[in-house]
Amino acid sequence: MNKSQELPIRAVAFDAYGTLFDVHSVISLAEQLCPGRGEALSMLWRQKQLEYSWLRAMSGRYKQFWDITRDALRFSVARLAPELSAADEARLMNQYSSLSAFPENLGALRELRSLGLPLAILTNGNREMIEVSVRSSGMDGMFEHLLSSESVQTFKTRSAIYDLGPQALGVSAAEILFVSSNCWDAIAATWHGYRSFWINRSGAPLEVLDTTPNATGSLLTEVVEYARQRLA
Amino acid sequence: MNKSQELPIRAVAFDAYGTLFDVHSVISLAEQLCPGRGEALSMLWRQKQLEYSWLRAMSGRYKQFWDITRDALRFSVARLAPELSAADEARLMNQYSSLSAFPENLGALRELRSLGLPLAILTNGNREMIEVSVRSSGMDGMFEHLLSSESVQTFKTRSAIYDLGPQALGVSAAEILFVSSNCWDAIAATWHGYRSFWINRSGAPLEVLDTTPNATGSLLTEVVEYARQRLA
Repeated sequence: MNKSQELPIRAVAFDAYGTLFDVHSVISLAEQLCPGRGEALSMLWRQKQLEYSWLRAMSGRYKQFWDITRDALRFSVARLAPELSAADEARLMNQYSSLSAFPENLGALRELRSLGLPLAILTNGNREMIEVSVRSSGMDGMFEHLLSSESVQTFKTRSAIYDLGPQALGVSAAEILFVSSNCWDAIAATWHGYRSFWINRSGAPLEVLDTTPNATGSLLTEVVEYARQRLA
Repeated sequence: MNKSQELPIRAVAFDAYGTLFDVHSVISLAEQLCPGRGEALSMLWRQKQLEYSWLRAMSGRYKQFWDITRDALRFSVARLAPELSAADEARLMNQYSSLSAFPENLGALRELRSLGLPLAILTNGNREMIEVSVRSSGMDGMFEHLLSSESVQTFKTRSAIYDLGPQALGVSAAEILFVSSNCWDAIAATWHGYRSFWINRSGAPLEVLDTTPNATGSLLTEVVEYARQRLA
């Protein structure tokens, strides 16, 4: 589509895990608990968390994302660090409930708000999990809407969860900038009509899914400039 | 369920990739093309192939599994071996169309047939891909039905693809033994009413999905004994 034909941006919706909160901020504790395998454990944990959400979404077997996160940790421990105790598991899960925010995020969110854009989180996380994460990362009061898988009992990339954005924000998906550090999530949002922005923090290759995100950058601050140029 | 209440086994359906055909038989060529990274490339290729099938199944974006397999290879090469040429890519794809069968498989399939059980393949693969694999592995004539994602335009673990088994075999899912080396596939088949047998060749931990396969073994020959004890 020609840029002149694009609709203006009237709201911004953010993925939470990996985008606002650093899911790999558990690495240092994981490394302390299982020396030499902390990073591998963190990577497998995240991969299994997504896999389990996808398998459940495909088969209509919803379960709260917090519980899926624990299931994924248990599989990953069984495969990589079977000596970890129940107490160690609890410490890792506790870490997950207070993930670090990426350093530039709070400033970028404030700037987007100052442009008059309503902000939302659109996440696989269940409500309690996401409320705790927002609070513990100092992002309280930044978001007009916390849109959770819990209200539709399914996960990304099913339509029902992406539909929450236009429903809550009262504008069409094409007028919402959807921001995710997960390339597959940005692409699926595009499939569902959003304008998408992929935060590619690690220099990963583009997922090969016949669709590209509408924009790509490496930091949340780049979203501010992109949105500023496309306001109503 | 008490074993005495179980229905007899009247047919056997097999997953194809990983179960009948060794998807990692491409490792030696991959290792030759990118020394030191052959195994990593093979693992990522397989993981992305499944991921792309899941994302497309969730979002109603079917594409032939052969093409998804190429997409997954392209992503994996971009991440792990960007120096690979188009000719090398073609050699790897060509390898994938004639994967090795696991050594015990042909004997086990013959024994199951001698028990009077009709056999089927139930696979994400598209029809041409699976016909080529069956032929090149010497399994011609072993299967009454080749049931492919192509006829329902979606992938595992959506119901539509598992429904193909009872439809083709003319018995209920509970009377079909579904055999897969992919634990998630065996579990999803259980969700959809099948009796499932997980071939755990690598000693992997059980996936944590609140359901266990009905039986587990490490070789296809163990399926023969299991079925023999549960005939009508």
